[in-house]
Amino acid sequence: MPEIRHALSVKRADNFAQWYQDVIAEAEMAEESGVRGCMVIKPWGYGIWERIQTLMDADIKAAGVENCYFPLFIPLSYFAKEAEHVEGFAKEMAVVTHHRLIGDGQGSLMPDPEAKLEEPLVVRPTSETVIGAAMARWVQSWRDLPLLTNQWANVVRWEMRTRMFLRTSEFLWQEGHTAHADRDDAMTETLRALEMYRAFAEDVLAMPVIAGEKPENERFPGAVATYSIEAMMQDGKALQAGTSHYLGTGFAEAAGIRYQDREGQQALCHTTSWGVSTRLIGGVIMTHGDDDGLRVPPRIAPHQIVILPMLREDDGDVALLAYCEDLRAALAKQSAFGEPVRVLLDKRPGKATQKRWAWVKKGVPLILEIGGRDAAGGQVSVIRRDRLWNDAAKANFRAMARDAFLDVAVTELEAVQQSLHDEATARRDANIVRGIDSFDALAVFFAEDKRYPGWVEVCWSRPTGAALEEVVAKLKTLKLTIRNTPLDAEPASGACLFTGQPAVERIYVARAY
Amino acid sequence: MPEIRHALSVKRADNFAQWYQDVIAEAEMAEESGVRGCMVIKPWGYGIWERIQTLMDADIKAAGVENCYFPLFIPLSYFAKEAEHVEGFAKEMAVVTHHRLIGDGQGSLMPDPEAKLEEPLVVRPTSETVIGAAMARWVQSWRDLPLLTNQWANVVRWEMRTRMFLRTSEFLWQEGHTAHADRDDAMTETLRALEMYRAFAEDVLAMPVIAGEKPENERFPGAVATYSIEAMMQDGKALQAGTSHYLGTGFAEAAGIRYQDREGQQALCHTTSWGVSTRLIGGVIMTHGDDDGLRVPPRIAPHQIVILPMLREDDGDVALLAYCEDLRAALAKQSAFGEPVRVLLDKRPGKATQKRWAWVKKGVPLILEIGGRDAAGGQVSVIRRDRLWNDAAKANFRAMARDAFLDVAVTELEAVQQSLHDEATARRDANIVRGIDSFDALAVFFAEDKRYPGWVEVCWSRPTGAALEEVVAKLKTLKLTIRNTPLDAEPASGACLFTGQPAVERIYVARAY
Repeated sequence: MPEIRHALSVKRADNFAQWYQDVIAEAEMAEESGVRGCMVIKPWGYGIWERIQTLMDADIKAAGVENCYFPLFIPLSYFAKEAEHVEGFAKEMAVVTHHRLIGDGQGSLMPDPEAKLEEPLVVRPTSETVIGAAMARWVQSWRDLPLLTNQWANVVRWEMRTRMFLRTSEFLWQEGHTAHADRDDAMTETLRALEMYRAFAEDVLAMPVIAGEKPENERFPGAVATYSIEAMMQDGKALQAGTSHYLGTGFAEAAGIRYQDREGQQALCHTTSWGVSTRLIGGVIMTHGDDDGLRVPPRIAPHQIVILPMLREDDGDVALLAYCEDLRAALAKQSAFGEPVRVLLDKRPGKATQKRWAWVKKGVPLILEIGGRDAAGGQVSVIRRDRLWNDAAKANFRAMARDAFLDVAVTELEAVQQSLHDEATARRDANIVRGIDSFDALAVFFAEDKRYPGWVEVCWSRPTGAALEEVVAKLKTLKLTIRNTPLDAEPASGACLFTGQPAVERIYVARAY
Repeated sequence: MPEIRHALSVKRADNFAQWYQDVIAEAEMAEESGVRGCMVIKPWGYGIWERIQTLMDADIKAAGVENCYFPLFIPLSYFAKEAEHVEGFAKEMAVVTHHRLIGDGQGSLMPDPEAKLEEPLVVRPTSETVIGAAMARWVQSWRDLPLLTNQWANVVRWEMRTRMFLRTSEFLWQEGHTAHADRDDAMTETLRALEMYRAFAEDVLAMPVIAGEKPENERFPGAVATYSIEAMMQDGKALQAGTSHYLGTGFAEAAGIRYQDREGQQALCHTTSWGVSTRLIGGVIMTHGDDDGLRVPPRIAPHQIVILPMLREDDGDVALLAYCEDLRAALAKQSAFGEPVRVLLDKRPGKATQKRWAWVKKGVPLILEIGGRDAAGGQVSVIRRDRLWNDAAKANFRAMARDAFLDVAVTELEAVQQSLHDEATARRDANIVRGIDSFDALAVFFAEDKRYPGWVEVCWSRPTGAALEEVVAKLKTLKLTIRNTPLDAEPASGACLFTGQPAVERIYVARAY
C-alpha cells in the first residue's frame, strides 16, 4: 500500500505532545500571547468555544438555571474566611495591589505608591466566595430555594507550567452555583449537572467519558463529594473534562447562606458548584485529531461544510462562483442537529489545493471542491474529513451530482458525528484493562517503555485518610492517579489491589493531564 | 381624573437619579457587590445583556468580523510604548503585582513578598495594545488585509465615582479592532461600525440616537477621529452610547503593524476600534423607564410575554395550568422579529397581583392574567406595558378570546417596540432647541432652576487647539459639553456662537452622563 503524505510533519505516535502543539498552530486555534501563561484564542478556536457555549448554555437554561455576572475582583478578606474552613486552600492567585500607574522618572511606568489599595483584590480563581455572599443576600426563606445560578466568565489561576487549552493562567469557563434546602436536593442537582456534562461530552463533542466520583484526596477543597467526567486521550492519558461538587453546608456556613424553613426555623443551605472550561477544546483535539490535524465534530464545527471554488482568474469564474453560491444557499437552508447547516463559500484568492489543506488541518467535516467543469455538469466533488485517504493514498474525493449531494449532506454530517464518536469509544474501550490484581502487575503494565498503556480498572477497599495517602503516594511512583469511581460500574469483587482488604468498589487508575 | 398609584415610590420628575437606582433595584437588574465599583448583574439585567450580545454579535459577524479572545493581563511595558505617543494617557488602572497569597501570621492573608512579579501586569482597560501586538504577528502582506477582529470581554477602569451600568470599575463590552491597507478603507470601516451602532440603537433598543463626530478634545487618546452615537435620556442629558475610532497609523506604528503592499513595499496599517458596553442597559432604562419601573423593548426582553395563572391552590388549578401551558406552547411556536416568541408561564406560588407588579416593574412587554373562568371560557386578559393605565387610573387589562389574542400577539409585540421608539423620538425631538445664538442665551437656557432643558443645536467655527480649549472651559462653567457633529446635519449658517467667526458646522451642546 502506498504511503500517505500526511499534512502534519509530526505524527501522534512519534511525539504526542509536539503533535498537540502543532495541531493548535496549524489549525490556527490559538497561540502564545506574549503574556505569561495566557494565550490568544484565534477565530477557529474561539468559534469552537462559541459553539460549546451556545449548546451548553441551552442545556443550563433548560434546567432552570439563570445566568448572572459577578465581579472579577474578590477582596482578600473573602479568602481569609474561606481559608479558615478549607484545608487545601490554593494560594497561587493574581493579586491587584494598586489602582494607578505613574511615570518612574526614567521613561517607564510603575504602580503609583500613592495609589496602593487598602485591601488587595484577588482576580477570581473561581467565584464561590463572591457568589456565596450574594446568595446570603438573596436567600431568605424556603420559597427562595432552590437558587440556581450560572456564570460564563474568565478566571485566573497562576500556573507554573502551562499548556494551551489544558492549563493556562487565564481560562474561560462556566461555573454553576446553586443553593438548596437539603442534602437530597443538592445531591440531585450535583448529579444532574454531572449527567448534563456526560451527555454533552458524548452527544455534542463525540467524546466518550466516564462519569464518577473522585476519591477523597482529589475533592475540591471543602467539598463533601466531587464528581467528574474523565475522557481518554489518544495517548492513553485521562483528561478530567468537567467537575460537579456537592459542597454540603460548609460554604453556606462561611458565607452565611441561611433560610427560614416551613416551620419558621433558620437552617443552613446545602450548596453545589459545577464547571467546564476551554479545557474541553484540548479534549476535542486529543480525542479526534489525527496526523492531518484537527477533526471537529460537526455539532461544534464553526463551519460544517466549506465550498472551495477552483478559481482560474478568468471569465469562467463568474459562472463558477454563481454555481457555488447557489449551492451554498441551498445547503444553508437545510437543518442538521436541529440548527441551520453552517456552510462557508471560501472565495479568497489563492490555490484551491492550499486552501483545501488549510481546511483539512482545521478539521472541517465536509469539504467540497468545485471546478468549472463540475459547475457546467451539475457536479460536486466532496471529501469527508474522517475518511480523508483512499486505498491509493490519495485524497478521497467522491464526485456526485449536485442534487444527490444536497439529498445526503445532512446525513453525511450526522455520519461524521457518529463515526468520530464510535472511533473514540472503540479506542477507549480497547484501552481499558481489567484483571490486573497486584501492584507489581500494575507497575509492569505502566512500565516506562510501554507507550500509551491506557487505563486500568481495579477493585479497591476505598481507604480514607492516611491509608488513602499511602495508596496515592505509591501510585505517584508510577506517575499514576485515581481517576474516579464510575457511577455505573459493576459491583466490586475480590480483594483490594492496594490494601488486600475486601474490595468495595471499582476505580480507574491512569496517567492524567 | 383619578390619580394613578404608580409602582415606584420615587418619580422621575421628583428625583431622576434616585428613580434610576430604584428601577434597577425593583426590576432586580443589578446590585452593589460589596467589591468597590463592581456590581452583580442579576438574571433580568444579564438576560437583557445576553439579548444585546446575541443580536449585536450577529451584526458583527455579518460584517465579516471574526471573534477572538485576548489576555486579561497586559504587561506594563505595552503601556509605556503607548504612553510615548498618546498624550492623554489614562492611568487609573488595576495593577497586578503579586501571584501568591500567604498567611500574615495573624490569621489573615497577604500578598507573598516572595511572589512579586518582575513586571507588573495591568488588567485591560481596553485591548488596543495586546491586539496590536497580535496584529503585528498576523499581518504580513496586503493579502492579509483587512484584518477584522472583535472581542467580547470584561474590562476594568478604576473609577472614583461609579453608577450602576453607566460607570463601573469593571464592565462588559465588545471591542472591535481592525487593520486596513489605507485610510479610505479604515474610515469606511469606522463609519460602518458607527452605522451598525446607530441602527442597532434605533431598531433593537428603540433608542433614537444622533450619530456624529466628537470634537477634537473628546477624541480617544491617539485617535485621528472619534465618532459616537448620542442618546437623550429622559432628564434631557446626553448619553454617549457607543464609539468608533479611526486611529490613523499611530497605533500601527507603536505596535509594528506593517504589511508588504502589491508593489513589495513595506507600509503601515491604518487601524480602527469600536465598542459598546453594558452602559447600553443604562441607556435603555433612562430612555424607556417610567414611574412604574422599566419598560423593555420586546426585541431585547428576556421574556416578551409572561402568563400569570391566578392559582387558587384547589382542584381547579389543574385545568387552569393545562390551559395556560397550551397557550404558552402556542405562543412559543410563533415568530416575532425573526425569532421564536419568548414566553414564560410563571407557575411560582404567590398572589397573581404581586407577581403582576413584579413583572410590570421588570418591564415585560405583554402580561397575561388568566383565571379559572377565563380558562373555562377560552378567554385571556392582557395588558401592554406601554399602556398600563386606563382613564379610570386602573390597570388597563383587555379581555380577549384566546384565539383572537394568538392572532394579534406578534403584532402587539411589534406595536410595543414601535411605540417605545416613537415616544422616545418625539421626546428627543421636542427637547432639541435651535436658534440660540449667544453664549448668554445659552446660559439662560441652561439656568440652574430649569430642569431637563434638553440639548441645544448651535453653529460653530470648529476651533482647534487653544481656541477649542477656551470654548470647552466656558461650556464647563455651565456644566455643558459638546456632544458631536451630526453626520446628517443641515449646513451651518451665520456666525459661531463661541468665536463669532463664520460657522462651518452644527454641533449639539448638552449636559451629559
